[in-house]
Amino acid sequence: MSRPLTIALDAMGGDFGPQVIVPAAMSVLEQESDLVLILVGNRDRLAPHLAGVKPAVRDRLVIHHASQCVEMDELPSQALRLKKDSSMRVAINLVKEGAADACVSAGNTGALMATARYVLKTLAGIDRPAIITALPAIAGHTHMLDLGANVDCKADHLFQFAVMGSVLATAVDNIERPRVGLLNIGQEEIKGNDQVKEAARLLTASNLNYIGFVEGDDIYKGTVDVIVCDGFVGNVALKTSEGLAKMLSHYMKEEFARGPFARLAGLVALPILKAFGRKIDHRRYNGASLLGLQGIVIKSHGNADAFAFANAIRIALLEVNKAVPQRISKQLESLLAERKTG
Amino acid sequence: MSRPLTIALDAMGGDFGPQVIVPAAMSVLEQESDLVLILVGNRDRLAPHLAGVKPAVRDRLVIHHASQCVEMDELPSQALRLKKDSSMRVAINLVKEGAADACVSAGNTGALMATARYVLKTLAGIDRPAIITALPAIAGHTHMLDLGANVDCKADHLFQFAVMGSVLATAVDNIERPRVGLLNIGQEEIKGNDQVKEAARLLTASNLNYIGFVEGDDIYKGTVDVIVCDGFVGNVALKTSEGLAKMLSHYMKEEFARGPFARLAGLVALPILKAFGRKIDHRRYNGASLLGLQGIVIKSHGNADAFAFANAIRIALLEVNKAVPQRISKQLESLLAERKTG
Repeated sequence: MSRPLTIALDAMGGDFGPQVIVPAAMSVLEQESDLVLILVGNRDRLAPHLAGVKPAVRDRLVIHHASQCVEMDELPSQALRLKKDSSMRVAINLVKEGAADACVSAGNTGALMATARYVLKTLAGIDRPAIITALPAIAGHTHMLDLGANVDCKADHLFQFAVMGSVLATAVDNIERPRVGLLNIGQEEIKGNDQVKEAARLLTASNLNYIGFVEGDDIYKGTVDVIVCDGFVGNVALKTSEGLAKMLSHYMKEEFARGPFARLAGLVALPILKAFGRKIDHRRYNGASLLGLQGIVIKSHGNADAFAFANAIRIALLEVNKAVPQRISKQLESLLAERKTG
Repeated sequence: MSRPLTIALDAMGGDFGPQVIVPAAMSVLEQESDLVLILVGNRDRLAPHLAGVKPAVRDRLVIHHASQCVEMDELPSQALRLKKDSSMRVAINLVKEGAADACVSAGNTGALMATARYVLKTLAGIDRPAIITALPAIAGHTHMLDLGANVDCKADHLFQFAVMGSVLATAVDNIERPRVGLLNIGQEEIKGNDQVKEAARLLTASNLNYIGFVEGDDIYKGTVDVIVCDGFVGNVALKTSEGLAKMLSHYMKEEFARGPFARLAGLVALPILKAFGRKIDHRRYNGASLLGLQGIVIKSHGNADAFAFANAIRIALLEVNKAVPQRISKQLESLLAERKTG
């Protein structure tokens, strides 16, 4: 007896909770006729948001009560110890128990990572899970990891990230041999720090399509499919990008508000600016994967709206259909076998 | 007998050499009536570029012959050993000998740093020089260091960077107590790596205006005056920003070229888009300082045009007028005295 494909949603997580997550769930259910979504959260707080759910999808939207909620600024260790019935924890438990194929949360990243790791465990051959997301590029997009789960990485960890990133790119983008680059800087005599240099040796010796060192500006070019770095560097690169985009948008709005002519020009240019905005809309890229776990966990941005959260659900769905964790395990086995025979 | 304020220019450095540097020199000399600029480079290759120099400034533009030239991809160690008569090395020598008050080069960053450090030496109390530049922000601008000179930094190095950055911000922006932040990430239980945590302790105990940890997006907000990080992270943040800006500009142009209406709208919006572009023009921020040396060395972007290179000369001029290296020495002395008595 097989159950339908099912994804558990931490319905209380993020800045807006059910207010955003219920409409997102509805819009995905309308498009995916075989999918079941489980809303995990406080049933009394969820109830008012369900009034508007269309009958056509209502029977594929299951409520699963959870009495607690992890706060956005709660310490991961505390969430792990004190919030055993949180919507986040219960959603992950459903994956562990096989009642759901994946889970999605917009909650506290540290708590999500700690809980997912504790409940689901890492795959054999993976020391540490990593956070990966796709970023827009001039040509296509670039997958980048780790984005903040691991601040101090050894060469072996970077190597494992490369394997996971490569598998993900193959699975979700149908690229047979994704180009993998190691993030480095170009100004040193002998480039980079020891970890990066050693990781480069490991990657060169592997059967991955390793293209060598890349620099920060390569993220947005589309000349590499997977960029590998430690979580400190990756997180800074991501946050720096967010900050720059905000500043540019601020200045753009300011200029188009400067007097009647600018306002008129802004009106004329509006459809073009909107098309531009859609193209680089970060909401279309919302949904980072916690890779390396025995299960699929997707992290949505805390301040995601319904459009963005729906995208995170679709990423979960895609990873389920492509069996990403199983593929990572397989790839690791073949790499280990290759090392032994090599 | 005092000589006029003098700045030496590595006239052969960068992607364009004298073609960009001579016009840049001219434009600065026209505005600064007491300044002397020394063009260091091959006199035969410089000659053709001097034909157009206005007589009014010609006598304050001195040629200083240097027979060699450091290539953009040359190893720093090789440049140091084999290029003792390069335009870069001779320009730095002029600072060392007191014939110039500062030098500016658009050449190979690694070679410039290695040569400057070898010739000029670091200030007492500074283990390693760092690269600092100003970046535009929603409010004002932010000084950030290190941007690539040091890939592995101990807490003490980060502390020294903080002192240098704070002194620079006071000197060039007239801020009495610049807000200093340590670049970190927000997702870890106990934030950041060991070096950052230890540097935070040192900064908290100092008399600097240390405001705590900041994240990547704070670079472009203007809520902190000086951001301190190791050179690997700083370089990635800088290059990532360059890459993102290029991608956004690419997509913007693409949208405004999409059919006749978009082109017309682009024409209408052009003055506003240009005003926007001027505001965030990276050329206005061209000129990074190699801080911590016994002398002033400014690095221009390799592909700077005359407008951008002129800006780098003006930064050198400002640092001379504000006696930045002397101020750093003083501040270090007072901090050391404070630690002893504290």
